[in-house]
Amino acid sequence: MPQTLPNPLNPFELGTQLKSLIARAEEALVSSLPPADTAPVELHQAMRYAVLGGGKRLRPLLVYAAGHALGESSQRLDAPAVAVELIHAYSLVHDDLPAMDDDAMRRGRPTCHIVFGEAMAILAGDALQALAFELLAHDVDAGVPPVRCVEMLRVLGRACGADGMAGGQALDLAAVGRKLTLTELEFMHGCKTGALIRAAVQLGGLAADASPEDLAALDRYGHAVGLAFQVRDDILDVEGESAVLGKTAGKDAAADKPTFPSIIGMDASRRHLEHLTQEAMDAIAPFGQRGALLEELARYAAARLK
Amino acid sequence: MPQTLPNPLNPFELGTQLKSLIARAEEALVSSLPPADTAPVELHQAMRYAVLGGGKRLRPLLVYAAGHALGESSQRLDAPAVAVELIHAYSLVHDDLPAMDDDAMRRGRPTCHIVFGEAMAILAGDALQALAFELLAHDVDAGVPPVRCVEMLRVLGRACGADGMAGGQALDLAAVGRKLTLTELEFMHGCKTGALIRAAVQLGGLAADASPEDLAALDRYGHAVGLAFQVRDDILDVEGESAVLGKTAGKDAAADKPTFPSIIGMDASRRHLEHLTQEAMDAIAPFGQRGALLEELARYAAARLK
Repeated sequence: MPQTLPNPLNPFELGTQLKSLIARAEEALVSSLPPADTAPVELHQAMRYAVLGGGKRLRPLLVYAAGHALGESSQRLDAPAVAVELIHAYSLVHDDLPAMDDDAMRRGRPTCHIVFGEAMAILAGDALQALAFELLAHDVDAGVPPVRCVEMLRVLGRACGADGMAGGQALDLAAVGRKLTLTELEFMHGCKTGALIRAAVQLGGLAADASPEDLAALDRYGHAVGLAFQVRDDILDVEGESAVLGKTAGKDAAADKPTFPSIIGMDASRRHLEHLTQEAMDAIAPFGQRGALLEELARYAAARLK
Repeated sequence: MPQTLPNPLNPFELGTQLKSLIARAEEALVSSLPPADTAPVELHQAMRYAVLGGGKRLRPLLVYAAGHALGESSQRLDAPAVAVELIHAYSLVHDDLPAMDDDAMRRGRPTCHIVFGEAMAILAGDALQALAFELLAHDVDAGVPPVRCVEMLRVLGRACGADGMAGGQALDLAAVGRKLTLTELEFMHGCKTGALIRAAVQLGGLAADASPEDLAALDRYGHAVGLAFQVRDDILDVEGESAVLGKTAGKDAAADKPTFPSIIGMDASRRHLEHLTQEAMDAIAPFGQRGALLEELARYAAARLK
């Protein structure tokens, strides 16, 4: 098959540069995870299963794209790219647990607790979170100044905790069957998925030793892309096809979960998505051509078919 | 009641200095946790319930004692003291879950998932782990050099992950009903409880900017105390009183969990405990009088009644 060229008319198809960065992230993930044949074998296998089962790798791509927008080499960006994906993977393992969203399938495969049991899935998630911080703290070995590395750890810690991802999941659980306002819905998603996406972009900037102005621009971008990603998710839940999504379409509506279309309607959701994408583009305009990958990812987040 | 004086004949009664450090740790924990009245309220309440429900605070004390042995002020030691206790608390919440050890009571109170439900208990544990790393990364604000802070984060990350606490719990789950050798048992405990105790001692040393020699001495101490703590735990499970322990005595034996007494017998376990305590004392001999708190904690770990 000939190499696919970037095609702006086919925005869910990533360009060659992002594709090669996905390959780089995959390689970094494989070599960062503990071997499947050393003790505790089952835990290691569950961790690898949780992380290496496909996925869009959007968060690592955002790390690389943000770092490249500031002229940084990929080498310093590997650790934060891996760290954010480990966090994302652990959150999916815990979210899928019977006590949480009780999902038996993800990405067309049985979920971690179905394969390894609940206890091992809980522990695999816990160990993946710890590994993310441990690896990130090793980014000084790749040349990141220690003071920047400490900031990165602070940003990641905050994004994962009660003010970020874990807090968002708690708000999500509490929201089932309730009517949320648009502001409440955006706050919930800003925590649940937005915080880690935003952190990914910040980590790329911090690893590249960005100026406060550049970090602020990146943060506006990260905030807009994080929300756009979620609006697109909700739209896909309504109009996507299960076969393409790899999960059941209409699931949120069936579970009585508040979504953007259920609160502001489908047309307004589409306009909101366009608006957020424009906000993201405006934020990174100062980077000029160096922001090309960030632009591509913003378009992808808003137009992806799964 | 008159202030209790340190009493070497009553080794499970901590001296005044350690008692005031417990009070300091409690205060630091209270102010580090998210408020119980801000959103997400339930998550914040579950986190506070998990951490503020008593406990020996051995790990924070080890941080303070190690730092003081090197002449460091308590201020720099607060963040690592809080961090190790948050990690310890989160591990108890997850270990108590139905899919893990299925415990309904801890420290004389219903466990976190009994009060807040399983989903919230899982999330509270996740958020506590993230908070530990976030707070530790703030120790630069107290004057710890960034390069040391990065080392501390690396040590804590490693102690929590697949090579440490989470790995030890996986080995423990796999060991139920199996016969372990003494080496296997020590390896399991070295991961499950030893890694975090050892990390606590190291963090105190790193926050105090210790020399490699001092760090090595502290690590020998931490390793010995971590194991001694576990041997004492197993002895207490056989001869302790449930009312004093705050948990059911004989529980490990009933659950067919391998313990030191079940593998090498009670007399050999007691001798092993003495030997480990001596090892700990020898390791910190070079600190002289400055190591007094570490000595006291080593005696406590080996002689405590609960």
